[in-house]
Formats: sequence, C-alpha cells, structure tokens
Amino acid sequence: MKKVKVGIAGLGRLGKVHANNIAFKIPNAELTAACSIMPAELEYAKNELGVKDVYSDYREMLEKADIDAVAIVTTSGEHCWQIAAALDAGKHVFSDKPLGVTVEECKLAEAAVERHPELAFFLGFMRRFDPSYAYAKKKIEEGAIGTPYMVKATGIDPEALVEGAIKFAATSGGIFIDMAIHDIDLMRWFLGSDPVEVYATGATFKHPEFKEAGDDETGIATYRCENGALGFVHVGRTAAHGYHVETEIIGTEGSLRISPVPEKNLCMIYDKNGAVVECVSGFPERFAESYQLEMQEFINCVESGRKPEVTVYDGTKSTQIGFATTEAWKKGGIVKIEY
Amino acid sequence: MKKVKVGIAGLGRLGKVHANNIAFKIPNAELTAACSIMPAELEYAKNELGVKDVYSDYREMLEKADIDAVAIVTTSGEHCWQIAAALDAGKHVFSDKPLGVTVEECKLAEAAVERHPELAFFLGFMRRFDPSYAYAKKKIEEGAIGTPYMVKATGIDPEALVEGAIKFAATSGGIFIDMAIHDIDLMRWFLGSDPVEVYATGATFKHPEFKEAGDDETGIATYRCENGALGFVHVGRTAAHGYHVETEIIGTEGSLRISPVPEKNLCMIYDKNGAVVECVSGFPERFAESYQLEMQEFINCVESGRKPEVTVYDGTKSTQIGFATTEAWKKGGIVKIEY
Amino acid sequence: MKKVKVGIAGLGRLGKVHANNIAFKIPNAELTAACSIMPAELEYAKNELGVKDVYSDYREMLEKADIDAVAIVTTSGEHCWQIAAALDAGKHVFSDKPLGVTVEECKLAEAAVERHPELAFFLGFMRRFDPSYAYAKKKIEEGAIGTPYMVKATGIDPEALVEGAIKFAATSGGIFIDMAIHDIDLMRWFLGSDPVEVYATGATFKHPEFKEAGDDETGIATYRCENGALGFVHVGRTAAHGYHVETEIIGTEGSLRISPVPEKNLCMIYDKNGAVVECVSGFPERFAESYQLEMQEFINCVESGRKPEVTVYDGTKSTQIGFATTEAWKKGGIVKIEY
Amino acid sequence: MKKVKVGIAGLGRLGKVHANNIAFKIPNAELTAACSIMPAELEYAKNELGVKDVYSDYREMLEKADIDAVAIVTTSGEHCWQIAAALDAGKHVFSDKPLGVTVEECKLAEAAVERHPELAFFLGFMRRFDPSYAYAKKKIEEGAIGTPYMVKATGIDPEALVEGAIKFAATSGGIFIDMAIHDIDLMRWFLGSDPVEVYATGATFKHPEFKEAGDDETGIATYRCENGALGFVHVGRTAAHGYHVETEIIGTEGSLRISPVPEKNLCMIYDKNGAVVECVSGFPERFAESYQLEMQEFINCVESGRKPEVTVYDGTKSTQIGFATTEAWKKGGIVKIEY
Repeated sequence: MKKVKVGIAGLGRLGKVHANNIAFKIPNAELTAACSIMPAELEYAKNELGVKDVYSDYREMLEKADIDAVAIVTTSGEHCWQIAAALDAGKHVFSDKPLGVTVEECKLAEAAVERHPELAFFLGFMRRFDPSYAYAKKKIEEGAIGTPYMVKATGIDPEALVEGAIKFAATSGGIFIDMAIHDIDLMRWFLGSDPVEVYATGATFKHPEFKEAGDDETGIATYRCENGALGFVHVGRTAAHGYHVETEIIGTEGSLRISPVPEKNLCMIYDKNGAVVECVSGFPERFAESYQLEMQEFINCVESGRKPEVTVYDGTKSTQIGFATTEAWKKGGIVKIEY
Repeated sequence: MKKVKVGIAGLGRLGKVHANNIAFKIPNAELTAACSIMPAELEYAKNELGVKDVYSDYREMLEKADIDAVAIVTTSGEHCWQIAAALDAGKHVFSDKPLGVTVEECKLAEAAVERHPELAFFLGFMRRFDPSYAYAKKKIEEGAIGTPYMVKATGIDPEALVEGAIKFAATSGGIFIDMAIHDIDLMRWFLGSDPVEVYATGATFKHPEFKEAGDDETGIATYRCENGALGFVHVGRTAAHGYHVETEIIGTEGSLRISPVPEKNLCMIYDKNGAVVECVSGFPERFAESYQLEMQEFINCVESGRKPEVTVYDGTKSTQIGFATTEAWKKGGIVKIEY
Repeated sequence: MKKVKVGIAGLGRLGKVHANNIAFKIPNAELTAACSIMPAELEYAKNELGVKDVYSDYREMLEKADIDAVAIVTTSGEHCWQIAAALDAGKHVFSDKPLGVTVEECKLAEAAVERHPELAFFLGFMRRFDPSYAYAKKKIEEGAIGTPYMVKATGIDPEALVEGAIKFAATSGGIFIDMAIHDIDLMRWFLGSDPVEVYATGATFKHPEFKEAGDDETGIATYRCENGALGFVHVGRTAAHGYHVETEIIGTEGSLRISPVPEKNLCMIYDKNGAVVECVSGFPERFAESYQLEMQEFINCVESGRKPEVTVYDGTKSTQIGFATTEAWKKGGIVKIEY
Repeated sequence: MKKVKVGIAGLGRLGKVHANNIAFKIPNAELTAACSIMPAELEYAKNELGVKDVYSDYREMLEKADIDAVAIVTTSGEHCWQIAAALDAGKHVFSDKPLGVTVEECKLAEAAVERHPELAFFLGFMRRFDPSYAYAKKKIEEGAIGTPYMVKATGIDPEALVEGAIKFAATSGGIFIDMAIHDIDLMRWFLGSDPVEVYATGATFKHPEFKEAGDDETGIATYRCENGALGFVHVGRTAAHGYHVETEIIGTEGSLRISPVPEKNLCMIYDKNGAVVECVSGFPERFAESYQLEMQEFINCVESGRKPEVTVYDGTKSTQIGFATTEAWKKGGIVKIEY
C-alpha cells in the first residue's frame, strides 16, 4: 500500500478543499507537505490536516519536501511557472484551472510538460469528473444522441455572492475570463472540435458597478467550431435561486441536459408557493464530489503511469478561447480564433 | 348536421360548467332547455346561455321540452329518481356522479336503465376522460406496465377552500363519501377488479371542527381486490399548494404516475425560493377539459347508439365501496364488501 | 346573443383548426362563409362545418357573404392584400402570422389598418394566448422576476416531420423565416424592446438536403435590443423526442422557463428506461388551446370594440427581424436592424 | 490528530462499504483490525484495506486488537450478542441495522447499553444521514410543513436483483422484516410518535416463487400512531426502473417528498422515448454518501463523547414494529403494537 505523497501549494478556499481530499479522502494519497505565503494557512495545514512539513517558499518545498507530486491551487498568474518548476524538479503536477493568464505562460507550461513525458500533468477541469457530466460523456460515446453538434451552456453565480464579484470586477479580466472557462472546456470536450470563431456581447441590468468597472453582469457568446458544430455560452452573476450551472448537448439523434434544476438534494416541498425544489448555493456544494473524483484520478494516474485525459494543450486552448471571447465581447463583434 | 338537444337539470357551479360545454363547446349538441329550483339559475340560463325554454319543475321539463337527452347535475340525493324519470320519458341521460346516496336508490336506477336498453345512460366519472388518465389507460392496455396490481390514489382539496368543507362536514356523509368516489372509480378501472375488503382510518390535525362534526380531515383506505390486487386511497382537505390529485398504477413491468406535481401550467419560476412550479387551484381548473370531453363522448354515444363505457353498475359499485369504506373508517377496522 | 359572423379564407391544416374553433368552440361567433381555391376544402366546409355559403374567390366572399369578419389562413404571400381588401370591405380581420413576406407588403397592410381605425385587426401570434406563456407574461408584469433582460428561446420541430421540411427547404425562405417568427415575437413581447442588431449562424449535421437547398437544419441567432437586453433564438428540425418549444425569460430578480420538458400530458412512466415523460408530437397538439383562445379574443375584440394587443406594426417588425436574421445567417455575421 | 481505532466484524457487501469508509474516508478514524469467518474476506482486509491485524474469532478481536470501537456488519442474528460483548470489553459500538431478530435479543442489547453509559452505541439507520432525508428533517424542525401527521413510504428493490430475493424468500422473515425496517424508522423519526396499530396485506403478481415460499412480492402496511398520526409503507421487489425509495411527509402546512424520481444523476436525455431520467440501480448507489456520513457521525460521537441520536430503544422498537407488521400481514388483519 504505497501512497503517493503530495505537497499542496495554496490553501485558500479551493486549496483547502483539495488538501482535505488528498489528506483524508484518497486512499492511495497522503498529504505530506504544504506551502503558502499566508501564515494562517500553514497553521491550518498543521492543525487541521496534520501536515508537519510546511513552507512559505514554493521552490523550497520542491527541493526539500518528501513528495512525489504537487497540487497547485495558487492564484492563476502563478500556475505556469510553478508547473514548470515542479516538473523540472521531477514532481507530478496537478494544477487548478486556468492553465495560465497569458498564452505565453501557457506555452512555457507546454514546453515543461513536453520536457517531462515521464511525469503526469493534470489540469483541474473538475466538471469532467462530476458524475452527471461524466455520465453524459459516456452516453454520448455510446451513441445515445448520435453526433453531438451543439452545446448550450449556462453558468450563473448566485446573487447572494455578487458583492465579491463586484469587488473584483475591475481586475478579474472580465466576465468571460472569470466565469466561462469551464463552459468552454465542456463545449470542446462534448463537441470534439475547437471553436474557430466567436461572437460575444453582454448586458448589465442590476448592478451598474459591473459596467462602471468595464465588466458586464451577463455575457453571452456564440461559437462556430472547425467541424461546423455550434456553441452557446451564457454566464452571469445574479441567479436568485442559487448557483445555476446547466449544460445541454444536442446531437443528431437526441439531446442531453445536465441539471436544468440545480437541485440542492432530492427533497421537494409542496407549500403555499407550489412545488418547490431548493437549489445549490455555490460551486463548493455543487461540485464537492467532482473535486474529490478528479484528485483521485490524478493520484491514480501518478500511480499507474496512465496519462490524464485533459492535456496541457487543452489548457492553452481554453485560455486562448477565453481571450478571443473577451475580445469579441469588448468590441461587440466577431473574432476569429487561431491556435 | 342534426344536433342532439339537451335539457340540463341543475345550474350550480358544476351545472354551469356542463351547461356551457353543451351550449358552446360540443359541435353536435345544443342546449334547448334548463331546469332549476333557483330562479337566479334560470335567469343565468336565459341570459348567458341563450336558453329560452326554462322550468322550475323537472318532470315538466321531461314532458314539455324539445329535448333528446337530459344532463342531471342536481344534488346527489335527486340523481336516481331523475335518471329513472328521464329514461321512462324516453330521454338519454347524463348524470353527474355519484349515482346515488343509497344502494336502494342505485338499484332503482339500474332497473330503469335495464328497462331502456335503447337509451344511453352516462355516468359522469370525468377523470376517465382527462387526457392524462385516458393516456395512462391506453398505455396500460398496450402493455406498458404489464399487469397492473396496485393503485395508489391521492386526492387533497386545497386548504384555501377548507371553510366550505368544514361547513358541510356534519352532513357530507364523511370524507370518503365526499371525496373518494373518483379515486374508487379509478382504482376499479385501472385494476379491472373489484375490491372485496377495505381497511380505513383517519386523522384530524389542523381543523378540530372536522372531528367535532364526526368527520376527519384526512382519510386513508386500503383495499384488497377479488383478483388479489391492492388499492390505497388517501383523501384530505388541507393541501397548502393547491388541489392535489395524483394516481399511481403499479404493474409487473413498470408503473405510471399521473400528476405528482399538480402543475398549473408549463411555467416554472426560478426565484429566491428555488425552482418553483405553481399548482392548480381546484377541480374546475384541473379537470376543465375532462368535463368537456366526457360531455362530448355522451353526445357521441347518443348520436351513434354506442354504449358508454361506464355503466350504471359501476355507479352502484362505487357507492357500495364508498359506504363500506365509511363503515371501516368509523370503526377503524376491516369491512368485507359484497355487491 | 348576437354572434359575430365570420368567413374563413383557407382551409388547410391550420385553417381547419381555426374554422372548427369558430364554428363550434367560440360561443359568440358563427362560421357563416368559407373560401378556398381547393374544391375539397369547400366540401369539408359544407359537410363537416355546416357552412353553406362557400366561395372559390376571396373578393367575391367579401362582397356577397353575410359576414362581420374574416379569418385569413391562406399562404403567407396572400395575407397582406387580403387584409387590405377585407378592411376596405368593412370587415374585421384576423390574419394568421406572418403578416407578410416582404416589408413592402406589410406597409400596405399597415396603411389599410390605419385607414380603418373602426375595425379590429388581429395578428395570430397564438403563443401569446397559450396559458403558460400568458401566465409568464402576467407574472413578469407583477414583478416576479424583476426587470427582464434576456430571452432564450428554442423551437425544434420533430424529426418525425422532417421530410416535409426537406421538401420545402428550397422555397421556405430559410430556417429563420420558416421557424423563428414566434420566437422573435415572444422575445419582443417579454423584453418590451426591439432588437437593433443580430448575429446568426447555422449548422447541418443530419440531413445534408438542407444544406444542398441553401438552408440549414439548425439555426441560432443572438440579438441585442435597443434597451440593452439580449435575445437568443435556437431553431431546428430534428428533435427526436417530439416538438420542442421552450422559452426562458431572465430578469434581475429571477427567471421563468416555459416547458423545458414538452410533456404530452401529466402522465409519467417508470419503466426499464427510467422515469419517462412522453412529449408532444407537433404544434397542433402543443398549441390547440392557444388557437382557440386567440380566436376567442379576436371575437371578443370585435364584439366589444376593444383593440387587440398585437398590432399590425408588431407584424411588420417581426418580418423585418426575420429578414435581418436571415441576412446575418447567410453571411455568418452581424446585421443592424432598422425599422 | 488522534484517530479512533476501529475493528470491523463482517466484510460482506455492506461490510466492505463500511470498512472502506473507515479506512479511507473518515479523517479521524483508522481501521486497525478486521474479523470474519470467511478467509477471503480477511485476505481482502489485508490486501485492499491494509489491515494487518485480522481475526476469525470475534471475541479474540475484542480481547487482543488495538481498537477503541467495533463496527458490526455481520448477519442480523449475531448483532445483539456481539454488541453486548463489545460494550463489556469497553469498546464503542457501531452496529448495522436491524438491532436484532428477536425482541429478547434486543433486550439483551438494551441491558448492555445501559450497563455502559460511558460508551457510544450507534445503530446504522443510515437513511437519517442521507443529505435529502436529513434536510427534510431539518426543514420540518424549522416548521416548513407545520405539524407532520402522515408518512407515506415506498421502498422497491429493482427487478434486476429479484433472483436473490427469491432465493432467500423462505428464510428472510418475510417482506416486511426484510425490507421495511428503514421505512419504519423514518416514519417514527419524522412523526415523532410510535405506531400502536398496524394493518398489513400483500400481493404476488409476477414471481409466484414468493407466494410458494410463504412470502409476498409486494407488501403494504398502514399504521396508526399514539398521537393519531398515520403511516403507510409500501415495499416491493420488482421495480423495472431501478431502486425506488421514496418518502412523503405530510404536515398541516405543507408536505415534503424525497426522491419521487430516484434519479441516477442530474442528467436527462431527450430521445425517441421522450424526456428520460435514468434511475439508481440499488442501495449502494443511492446511499453511498449516507453510509459514509453515518460512520463519520459515529466516529465524531466516539471522539466527542456526544450520544448518537438513534438509541438502542429505537432499534428494539423497529424490530417490534416489524414483527407486528409481519403478524398483521400473515393474518391479513389488524394488530395492536405494544412495547
């Protein structure tokens, strides 16, 4: 029962989710080191996760810690160089999405991955591991809907969390960079083709702060893919009912829809409002299981030498598509996407 | 384009529904006469329905009016003698449910129907004409669920209408006579077998007035049928969300469920409560189409000489089952049902 | 009980629906004349509808028939001149959608309507009368979702009917003209603003015949409205499950969705496939009630002198938007819409 | 980070579930010993769970193993003496349901629990830990449905597994003992009152083998509780669509329904069958999370000294109710329940 030893970099909200999964939920992994520039996060690692070997310097962890792999959950701008450094130090790498915030960075990560074919590189598009999305993919591969030719994706954050979004509106890179990356990845995954053209626009009707910060409250983008398939992505920040992530895949023989009602659980109440299904409050509730399953898959890849399905190139492409979408949205027009 | 001429008896809430259907919604029918002991109802017939030939005496209408058929929508205690009188006067008969309030009365109606095999007798179990129930029956006949062996039926009136129910609690005959007759008919229809034993009980948790009047707010009954099939009926008066009529038919190869969410229409709202489907307010809203379709079928039977599917004996049996259920409920025990 | 006398022009599939409604389902209307260039349709009028006064020439019907109003259900290219002729003959007019097939025609109809403010002109956007759509509108007006700022509309014809669509692909005007007019009307109605820009594209993955005829199997269009609101319309022809018409209206405080599952009725089956809801087969099944309700409203408008909510200008605008969408689709780009 | 050391007794299908949870999913637990009379199960413990300390004799494990607690997942007839032995050996105890197969046994377990107030005793009614059931309970406690006064519970095993049920029909104790214990526990839990009377009956329509073995394919039972509340339990073995566990709790101000569609996941397919939701295949799929959450709660109780919510007396009562239901079913009548 040899376990894969993992060091985590970053212990913010999502970092804690990953760290707990590694420490307690993945039988063949153990969390042996942690790195953060926040002392409180290192205290958390010691006290809550039982990690004794903690670092405030990432490179130092790579050098000194007894680890086979690193899980990078730092801010997006740090991902690429940390990926490269870890691979060059001989560590398998799990990195949270996005791969990077510029295409140049992504290319550096690509080069590092290419230098180290002996190591696993795993990019955290966790929705692919959500049991419902994974099931949809399996059904499609079995031919349940014929050839998929359109994806319609919706991702709306809950109004309850809008204040945070307003605060970061000026620096988030805009609504598409901030919110659409998972939808873009799902579109590519389900369609099996890359978008070559995007039209995008947006609207702000509730919180003028978004507009004032150069952002939008709602964004919609339409994609045409290389093989002629279509994509539509709608992202927003003001869902009254909770966290709404819904995806439809349309094929020649049928279609699949994932979570049109983002139900909290299997409980329905009949009361004076009617028949009511309460909804999930945010991504940690909706995707808790996915985070665990993707980390399990990463560890299994490390253990078995199997390559993760998502590649570093998927990460670069998603970033490129995000930028093209943002460009189209800013000019309210059409942009060609080249890879 | 000869039309069937109909005289209506009774123009209360449901009588108005039937009268409007006959007058305006059934191409091969016309409403040529109306009878009521309430002057205001006769005014309604003249002014709203355009019926010139009105009567305060039922027998007089039978004698004098230019009618081929009567539609009886009077109080339950009048049904049987009015059926017999109409048949003996050579008129086809539509009677609202229940057939009668005593088994003796029902037998008189049976005898009258037997005396007049040349005339149509139609008993208004309109749920059988509801598109969803009719579809369920058709699917079952096509074998969609194999052999049906259990029916679970729920009928709960809206809390919004509870005051009326409280007012009539002492004289309604009890909750099963008042509310379960349609469920009993559906159970017999779907199972194709008659119950031979019933266990029943009840409860009152919200409005003690029911208990004080010798009634109950909620009643449940369990049936065993001649062929071994089972039935469960749950009736109540305090649905917060609206009018809840739900039926499940369970068979050896599958099951069918009709309106687990008694949706008002196809509109769903996502708001701070979650994903909400508003519900129907009462039987006129839920079964508007059924009332029209059953009357159309009655007229078609009259016109074509075809016999209605529901017979006078179905009416008697439902009444007998209702009484046996009431007896079981009153003693909190088991009662054998004999026909 | 004076009834509005109506002459119908056109007795094809939809014409028969309207004719039957006028003849048998609208208390304050009667069908007194019919006009068609197809002798078989006039036979139908005589034998099935009891209309004795039939014409093969539209102008002759206007001149000679005893009618207060006409219902125009002819081919789209005839609508405008027939509208003008009827109004000039002093008849109230119901016209099926679209108003016309060119903007010039529409302007002629507008002028006729303006010449006759004393007459009712009603344009058959029947979805507005569907109980679910009407309810959604009412809820929005009551503030249930705050300010509506996006409409996402889907309309997919059943694969079962695709052969007909293929046959007419070369002459239908393209998928947006053929299929999107109701969605465009709903978008304008719910948003309360007119689109000023459209982006559109399409795809053909199953039936290459569409592409060969210069059409597409699937079309998507994105709209930006004068007030900044957004629209997305997806039309197609190959729904495996039936006739899929779904609309979502998104507002600042919630959203409304109409018929995400285009259920046939309230019956659900649990069988080896899972929990299955069967779906409607086509627009006659889905919108049967809407056709009746819109005609009732037309007759009520005639009777009361009230003006219909939909105006001739709504008809012109929908046609203009349809053309702009088609232009955008053909060039795969963005088109400004001017009125 | 002291962990609770657990020894598991029994490593059959459910035993493996519990063992894996203890070993890998509960941060503050470790699986340090295992006991089974099946050598293959001990091999599993060593190879898959990394447990070195294994026993074929339960008492020997209690004596020698380095454990704070035992998890008893043996056959039902062994539970009670193993509970008593473990408590007397100073170990905290988790026991799977049912508590015992005779009331006498249950009393011995009660006495042992009473002798050891310092130790935690946890009975595995895992449905209480299912997020949907737990949420329903919380909503009820918050007053969402007023006073609960009826529970309607359904539990139907999948037809796909019926062969196993047939094989054990003669020795299972009958359908209510075999299948209704969770529904009985939920009924008591949600109603906050104990049944004092039960009526039960059954039917066999598909597999005569059940009848031949003195069992039934379907059983229904109706309960009246001390406080007047009502219960209805329907258990069966032939669900075509999968594993159907559904519960409705009806209160004076509303009602709650848990999993009327026992959906496999959040994916819906639109295909030629209609709109289809696939269903769960069995209890391991439906309640995977519940098993983990209940074990987590057990460990937390051990660690904190907090007492589990379910008591040994709940176990005895459920067994008593199961027997009374079976008696009522066998005689097709009513049985008083005394505790």
